Amino acid sequence: MKKGLLVILSGPSGVGKGTVRQELMKDSSLHLWYSVSMTTRAMRPGEENGREYYFVTPEEFQKTLKEGGLLEHNHYVDHDYGTPKAKVEEMRQKGYNVLLEIDVNGAEQVMAALGKENVCSIFLLPPSFEELARRIKGRCTECDKVIAERLEQAKREIAKQSDYRYHVVNNDLDSCAKTIASIIRKEAAND
Amino acid sequence: MKKGLLVILSGPSGVGKGTVRQELMKDSSLHLWYSVSMTTRAMRPGEENGREYYFVTPEEFQKTLKEGGLLEHNHYVDHDYGTPKAKVEEMRQKGYNVLLEIDVNGAEQVMAALGKENVCSIFLLPPSFEELARRIKGRCTECDKVIAERLEQAKREIAKQSDYRYHVVNNDLDSCAKTIASIIRKEAAND
Repeated sequence: MKKGLLVILSGPSGVGKGTVRQELMKDSSLHLWYSVSMTTRAMRPGEENGREYYFVTPEEFQKTLKEGGLLEHNHYVDHDYGTPKAKVEEMRQKGYNVLLEIDVNGAEQVMAALGKENVCSIFLLPPSFEELARRIKGRCTECDKVIAERLEQAKREIAKQSDYRYHVVNNDLDSCAKTIASIIRKEAAND
Repeated sequence: MKKGLLVILSGPSGVGKGTVRQELMKDSSLHLWYSVSMTTRAMRPGEENGREYYFVTPEEFQKTLKEGGLLEHNHYVDHDYGTPKAKVEEMRQKGYNVLLEIDVNGAEQVMAALGKENVCSIFLLPPSFEELARRIKGRCTECDKVIAERLEQAKREIAKQSDYRYHVVNNDLDSCAKTIASIIRKEAAND
């Protein structure tokens, strides 16, 4: 049995590594095996152990790391992530082309460990910086948090509308301004 | 000379108070005078003292505040903002309808100070929460900061592309995946 390749799919965050990986995995003729990472973060609803990640305790993670059991590892937003080395080797021995979808940092570690020449390294590039900015904006979870807080604040502010004499919906600028203009005219005449 | 109205234009952040105010100011028949606020924040390029704001030092601001010279005041992102009382009264005496474009907090202060019944208070409402969320997202300066940082990180990541054997632009998912599939096939055959 011919040993499989080690394919690294990397590139900047937001370039679409995950989507491209999923697309590649559909092609069974490529004999790909996707290397599932190990993580200390909690499993989320809908996730399965061994599918999205191998979910382990921080102790298990550190044990694997100390034993040299990780091909690469990263710490990201309070949690550890790593690629289990033994499984990668096992699947390559079985003839699978093992696909690692990892960030630039992880890819650097793998290439340093195995030698650049022994890795089929693929760097994904965005069509443009503008497009990358658009994609990053679309998946900015911090932004979603800030916006959620603002919306909560807006709800608290809207709750105070009963203190006001007039309430105008800003649906269309022109008609909104006309409504307010007529309010001002009426009040000025009454006063 | 008949005394002018005090018009409060308020509503949740993101509802479009500034745009509506600008639209109202175009109508000279409303005899509006826009009350320019006082602030301790620095003047930005393109701004003029007395047009966007009266730019003052923190000491000047505190002095005005202590003398009871502000109709309402707020502290927002490290800076003070307030409505100078004397000017508002002067312009109303001259017959102008004075327009305050202020947030809910400031409006509350003005209504408490002058009495709700003496104020023409207008509360702007968004057409829907969805629309408000969209507007808040569009003007989220924190988000722009986060995205700018991510883009800087992406630039540093992209600078490492020379470490990789292949470079594929993720312009179109299908053609990108096809390109990578052919790379893997070629490498697997060569190995």
